[in-house]
This record gives sequence, structure tokens and C-alpha cells, in this order.
Amino acid sequence: MAWFRSFIQVSKIKSSVRPTKPTHFFTPLSHFSSAAGPAEAAVRERWGLAPTGPDDKPRVVVLGSGWAGCRLMKGLDTKAYDVVCVSPRNHMVFTPLLASTCVGTLEFRSVAEPIGRIQPAISSAPGSYFFLAKCTGVDPDNHMVHCETVTDGSNSLEPWKFKIAYDKLVVALGAEASTFGIHGVTDNAIFLREVHHAQEIRRKLLLNLMLSDVPGISEEEKRRLLHCVVVGGGPTGVEFSGELSDFIMKDVRQRYAHVKDYIHVTLIEANEILSSFDDRLRQYATKQLTKSGVRLVRGVVKDVKSHKIILSDGSEVPYGLLVWSTGVGPSPFVRSLQLPKSPGGRIGVDEWLRVPSVQDIFAIGDCSGFLESTGKPVLPALAQVAERQGKYLAELLNGVAKAGGGQANSSKEIALGDPFVYRHLGSMATIGRFKALVDLRQSKEAKGLSLAGFTSWIIWRSAYLTRVVSWRNRFYVAVNWFTTFVSGRDISRI
Amino acid sequence: MAWFRSFIQVSKIKSSVRPTKPTHFFTPLSHFSSAAGPAEAAVRERWGLAPTGPDDKPRVVVLGSGWAGCRLMKGLDTKAYDVVCVSPRNHMVFTPLLASTCVGTLEFRSVAEPIGRIQPAISSAPGSYFFLAKCTGVDPDNHMVHCETVTDGSNSLEPWKFKIAYDKLVVALGAEASTFGIHGVTDNAIFLREVHHAQEIRRKLLLNLMLSDVPGISEEEKRRLLHCVVVGGGPTGVEFSGELSDFIMKDVRQRYAHVKDYIHVTLIEANEILSSFDDRLRQYATKQLTKSGVRLVRGVVKDVKSHKIILSDGSEVPYGLLVWSTGVGPSPFVRSLQLPKSPGGRIGVDEWLRVPSVQDIFAIGDCSGFLESTGKPVLPALAQVAERQGKYLAELLNGVAKAGGGQANSSKEIALGDPFVYRHLGSMATIGRFKALVDLRQSKEAKGLSLAGFTSWIIWRSAYLTRVVSWRNRFYVAVNWFTTFVSGRDISRI
Repeated sequence: MAWFRSFIQVSKIKSSVRPTKPTHFFTPLSHFSSAAGPAEAAVRERWGLAPTGPDDKPRVVVLGSGWAGCRLMKGLDTKAYDVVCVSPRNHMVFTPLLASTCVGTLEFRSVAEPIGRIQPAISSAPGSYFFLAKCTGVDPDNHMVHCETVTDGSNSLEPWKFKIAYDKLVVALGAEASTFGIHGVTDNAIFLREVHHAQEIRRKLLLNLMLSDVPGISEEEKRRLLHCVVVGGGPTGVEFSGELSDFIMKDVRQRYAHVKDYIHVTLIEANEILSSFDDRLRQYATKQLTKSGVRLVRGVVKDVKSHKIILSDGSEVPYGLLVWSTGVGPSPFVRSLQLPKSPGGRIGVDEWLRVPSVQDIFAIGDCSGFLESTGKPVLPALAQVAERQGKYLAELLNGVAKAGGGQANSSKEIALGDPFVYRHLGSMATIGRFKALVDLRQSKEAKGLSLAGFTSWIIWRSAYLTRVVSWRNRFYVAVNWFTTFVSGRDISRI
Repeated sequence: MAWFRSFIQVSKIKSSVRPTKPTHFFTPLSHFSSAAGPAEAAVRERWGLAPTGPDDKPRVVVLGSGWAGCRLMKGLDTKAYDVVCVSPRNHMVFTPLLASTCVGTLEFRSVAEPIGRIQPAISSAPGSYFFLAKCTGVDPDNHMVHCETVTDGSNSLEPWKFKIAYDKLVVALGAEASTFGIHGVTDNAIFLREVHHAQEIRRKLLLNLMLSDVPGISEEEKRRLLHCVVVGGGPTGVEFSGELSDFIMKDVRQRYAHVKDYIHVTLIEANEILSSFDDRLRQYATKQLTKSGVRLVRGVVKDVKSHKIILSDGSEVPYGLLVWSTGVGPSPFVRSLQLPKSPGGRIGVDEWLRVPSVQDIFAIGDCSGFLESTGKPVLPALAQVAERQGKYLAELLNGVAKAGGGQANSSKEIALGDPFVYRHLGSMATIGRFKALVDLRQSKEAKGLSLAGFTSWIIWRSAYLTRVVSWRNRFYVAVNWFTTFVSGRDISRI
């Protein structure tokens, strides 16, 4: 049980090391000694956070830092629980505004919210932590998750494996962009789900604008470089196309006057664009996008080469920038988990968002779906679903702790209250040129408000501005919108 | 002379291709045809901008987009000249504020100024261009430069070689960080000269802060990961150390409370810090930095390993982040140019910043230095020297054009006016904690104002705020300072 003692030790480490105070101008370097020896390396995989004792605060481990996980952490009562978050990114992305960052309407940092700002206990409470790591395995029998640090190729630290014991585990790992097994998508297309995707799109777009101005390049090549193709006509694809056409009409005309007639946007969709909106709004969007110069093409992508797409009818579409936004599905890791599954391969949950057949595991957001046995449909992969589930589960867990069921395996007898019910609040999408769609009906058949145009755009902007998590970012989003309006988008390729 | 005709053709290409207007919902894709054939590939290296004719506007080609090149472009009379800039980056970096971006006091975009904002003609005038490319050779006999596109590993376009004819050539290629041939510096240390360096530092610092919180990591390793070492005690090294200690004292204490006692900054300098400032200011800086927790170590670096530095006295300094700011020297490309050289290997210029023995070539900024024959010393590699030279040369070239000497080989008989004289306006450096040094004397021996403390800090901030090139960035710098003061620095690792 030597390793278990190390566990306990580690979880109880106090800041026993006095910080070295500089006492004179040239500090001797003698307090540095050589690095850890081989004996220490051997125990690396064993160390971690040990199970909490009966008198300790129970620990909620949250996997993921998206809408669901962050809303949950925000709502958790940190007097009742220690919160440990494991995620490969230390911030939440305000995804509805991500498309705006690709062309510089907004800055990247204005849509990224550090987790420590969402739940301050994470960065300061003694038993709460954020770990920059990915989860590599879940062990429900031992109430334990296996993790490995994420270092993005930096040589700071060798990959470090550790285990964390949980009292409650919340899986909020989100989903991955679907490629439908089409060859070449992963290698050549850029998704639009993370800040680094938006950064890559912005860098590539600016690169192609500059490369197309190189002397001697053929007309054909110029047109290819400046052909921006978006595959997928959902809200992300449409919003990105709208932003791109705004960028072309306002900024490219001014700042890249030499090549302004060569740049074009094509949106490829197999079915209808914005299929979740009603016919009238869809027609409006189609008209507006076409007016802004976006070419709408109905087609099915068969193959993606490095400089061209092959459609199923055999036609070839050369491109310089390819953005892929055809929808999402569960990640291979989520698929691999030995847990019950909902239709579509998500983690199956009951009406209280619990994963049945195991104790103390919950799943929320895009990675989870109601089990067939609940008789409820799998909810769409939307921010508002994830956020509502995070909020619901935080309240549920707070109630469980209050009733004395915070510890592992101790909540069986506790009443969980009302099950989770999702009420759709409506959908919004901007389509560029100060125009947006707002559909406030619960479903396509229901009655209610649905409108399109400038008023919708004002509603869209106001709604998202108030939804941005922190005051800091709300301020920055407003400042970015203001400077974009006054002096155009920033085109430094940094 | 077939290739020469292509030259002419290319330089006169008009926008003869009508932009395809979308006429119906589903646009046919038939107007895309296959890519350029092999015949075209064969002529690739030949195409470019041909020599201007006697009736054309003369062309100034500027190599580089730093302080010198950008100030020159800003000042050039675009009615008299077409301006062509060749540089691997499409923006100028406001270097005095770069250190502040590493810890998030300022945002990266607030210190980057797109060239098109500095000289709008570049992005819109018919004969003016910006090419994202590096210069690979200068051919003074034919008044021609050889260039190759820069694509950063993107597969957008194969490397593309082209030649540009110039009437006047201004070499403003700047300098490179010196490693003094010390092994391991390039592989393990990060310089602080470009925005991407600052981005790398910020990402690594935040990564290390998070990795050091991983459970089970040894005390030793934790201390190493959070040991930030700065080599070089010039203004850049000192300002970065000051910013870092501000970040530690304000933000790390709050946002990384678990590891706050482990993070330390060490500044290694072989001689004295801030050697260009006077004794009193230097002592003040030393006291303030020490008070802020920066360890000042006098030492000479002998070898840099991936996790530790070896000093010449044999002592080892483990580090998690290593920033190298020991000064600059000419780049290998500048050294390789077959042009006269000044002491230190820079491009040699006369008092009018002309490169003698060749026609119509000028050199300004850190890549240039007075020839020994002028009897003047090589000026220090400072932004203010570069900027003053850019301004001077713009006026000189404008005068030459007015006198009818704008074309290649036509300015021999034209009087150039007063030679360039450099008058040092003083030096400034911030040292953190609302303190700075301001030395307004022309040299260490001269009389004049020199002060340190809060007033200097106000002067420092005001001076730089007014010097930031565009109103947009001036506004953003002020907004960044404000939010940093109110809500701390952003710690999202994006």
C-alpha cells in the first residue's frame, strides 16, 4: 500500500516550502539541485488525488470545459463540494460568436472565458483544481478517472499520467465535428469549434489574400486561392458565410483592392440551409446571402483533395480555404466508454441526467442523450441544451449534498426532485449585412414570434451581448463591434 | 525575349475578368477549369514586376516592415512613387510594448499595425503592392531583387519565386537576436522580437502554470517549471522581468493560488543591467526589481539544455521558461549580401544612407551602419534610430523625385540636401509596479533630465500611447490597460 500512502500524502501536501526571498543582489544558485531520480519516475503513474474521507468535502470531477461543464461548475456550491475540472483547454468558448472572430469582427479573447473567472474556487480553494489534461479512462467500480497531461508538443514536461478519485463524476466532453468518413476532410478542411480553428481560418484567409497578389500568378490560381468554400448550411456555416461576405464587401474592397474581384464564397449543402428555421426565414436567408455574393450550391461532397473538392456528381470545386461545419457526433473516446448509450452513440442518461447501471456518474451536453427507455428524444447538440443541463445538474448536486449524499455511493436513497425537461427558447442566426433571423417558437409547428431583418440583428446582438459570461468580455465584445464599425476589421496576420 | 513580354504583360494586367455575379440559386460550377498546365509552371520563376518605363511612375521597393521600413513608407509621396513592400509579415510591431503582451497586460493585436493602415496606397494604388515574401537576392547591376513567397508551411500555394525591378531600393531588413554561438539557445530559448515570440512565451507560461499544478509532481519539478529565466539585462529583458513580476504579484496570486509560492523570475546578465542608463537609475532599477522578487544574477551562459542552463562557473540553473534578449546582430542574409559593410557586418551607408558603389540602393534601421570612411559611429539598434532614418530617407527620396531623379540611374547629379544626423532623444524603460526610468539626456555624460519612479511611469505610458501609430491601436492600448487594472490579465490559453 505504499502507493496509497503517496496518494494521501499528495492530496494533503501543504505549502511547506518557504518561498526564497531575495536577500542580496546576486542570489547564489545553490538551492537548485538535480532533477528527480529514477525512483520517483517509477511511481509517476500512481500519484493523483486520493478518495476523500468521510469527513472531507466530497469531490465533483468535471470532464470538459464547454457550455455544459462550465455552467455546472458555475452553479456548484463550493461550500458543499470541491470541484476538479479536467480539460485540454483552460477556458470556455462562447461558440455563437466564434464565426465573427474568423474575419476579425471580434477578437479571439473576447469569446474565450477562463474557467477561473467562471468558478473562482477552481483557482484558489484548497481542494479544487483545474488540470490541463485529457481523460483517458473511467473506472466506475473504483470511482476513479485516469488522466494524462496535454502539452501540445511543448517540452515543458513529459506526458504525466495520474488518477483522480471522484465522489460525483460529470462527463461533459462535448462532441466532435463529423466528417461522415469522407476522405481528406481532416487533412484539408478546417472545422469551426475551437478558438484555434478560428485562428487557423483567419491566418489562412489573410495568407491567401496576400498570396493571390503575388506577381505572375495565373488568373485560375488567383481565383482558386480566393475561393472560400463552406460545407454545411447549418447556423455555423451560414453565420460564417455571412461574416465572410461582410468582410469581403467592407474590408477586402478597401484593403485588398488589387484582388477584390477574385474573392468568392460558396456554401455547399446537401439538403436545405438552416433546416431548423421555418420556410419564410429560410427563403429570406437564401435571398440575403445570394445578394451578398454567397453562392449557394446543393451538392454532396465525395472527396476532398488538397486544392479541390469532388462532388458526388463528379464536378470539381477548386478552393483556397475550406471550412467544414456539417454537424457533430460523439468523439471516439466517448464511443469507447463502457457505459450505456443513447441512440446515435452518445452516453445514455435517464431523466435526472444520471448514467444508469453505474453509481455517481452523470453526463450532460453534446456527449449525452436520453436513453431509449426514457421515451424521450435525444436533444439537439445546442449550447442552450448544454447550458440548461449544466444548470439543472448543479442544482441537483447541490440538493444531494444538502441531503447528505455528497460522498460516493451515498445518494441512493435521496430524492432527486423533478426530472430534467428541455424547453426550446428559440433559435437565432446572423446572415451578414446587419441582418439576422430570430425564431422564438418552440418547434417548427408551434406558434410564436419569428422574424428576419435588421430588428432581428439588433435582437441577435443584444441577446448575445447579455449572454457573454463576464463583464470583461461583454465590454470587449462591445468595443470590438464598435471599432469594427468605425475603422474596419484588423488584418494583421499574427 | 518571350519572358520579357510576359513581364510587361503582368505588370500591366488589368482587371479584365468580370466578377461572376450569382444570378440564380444554384450556380453551375462549370466556370472552374483545371489548374495551370506544365507550360505555365516552366515560366514561374521569370514573372514579376518589370522595370518601369520612362513615362511610368518610378518604383521604390522596400525590403522589410519594421520601424525603419514602415516610417519610410508612411512618408513617401505616393504621387511621385509606386511603393512595393516585400516582407514576411504584413504588419509592423510596436516593439516597446511587446513585453507587455507576454503576460496579457496588452493584447497582441494592440501592438501590431497592418502596413495598409500605415501606407494605404499599398493596398489600393494600381502600381503599389505588399508581397508576403522574403528577399532571396539583390542584383544591383540589373536593378532587380529576387523574392520567394512565405507560406509558413501552409499548403495554399507552392513556394513562388519572382523578381521585382526597382528604381530605388531600400533595405530595411532589421536584425536578428544574437546567440553568440551558444549551443542550444535557438532550440530552447524564446526570443522577444516578434508577436509570435510573445504568443509563444504567453502560451508556455500559462502551460507551465497549469502543469505545475498536476497532482503528484515533485517539488523540484514544480519549482523548475515555474522558474522563468531571462538572459540579458537590456531594456527588453528588464521590462519583461518587470511585467512578469507584476503578473505574478497580481494575477498568479489570485488565479493560480495553489502554485503561487513556487514561481520565480531570475534575470541573468553578464555585465550590468540597463547599461545605457546612468548609475542612479540603474541602482533604482536594481532595488525595485529585487523588491518585486526578481533575482538578479551575474553570470555568463555557457550552454543551454532543454530544462537547464549551464553557466560558465559550472552552476546549473533549471528553468521552465527561458527568454533570450541579449542583443541583436545582422541576419545571415544581410551578411551574405555583396554590398559594402560597416563595422559589425551591417550594410555600410554614407551620410545620406546610400550604399556606395551601387546605384539607387539605400539601407536604414538595424541592418545598416555608417561606413568607417564616414568617421561616424555605427548607431545603436534602437526603434528611434530606425524611425528617424525612415523619416529622413522618405524626405530625401521625395526631394529626389521632385528634382526629376526618381527613375533608376537618374539621380547622380541631384543634390541630396543635408546628411542624416542622429540626435538621441533619451531612453525609457518600465520596471514593473507602476515604476519606470526616464533618461532624457543625449548621452551618459550630457546634462539633462533623468528620473525614476511613478512619474516616470506616467511619462512612459503617455509617451508610448501617443507614439502608437493608429488611433485604433491607441484606443485598444488604453482599453487593455484599463481592463488589466480593473479585472486583471486574461489567462485563457488560446
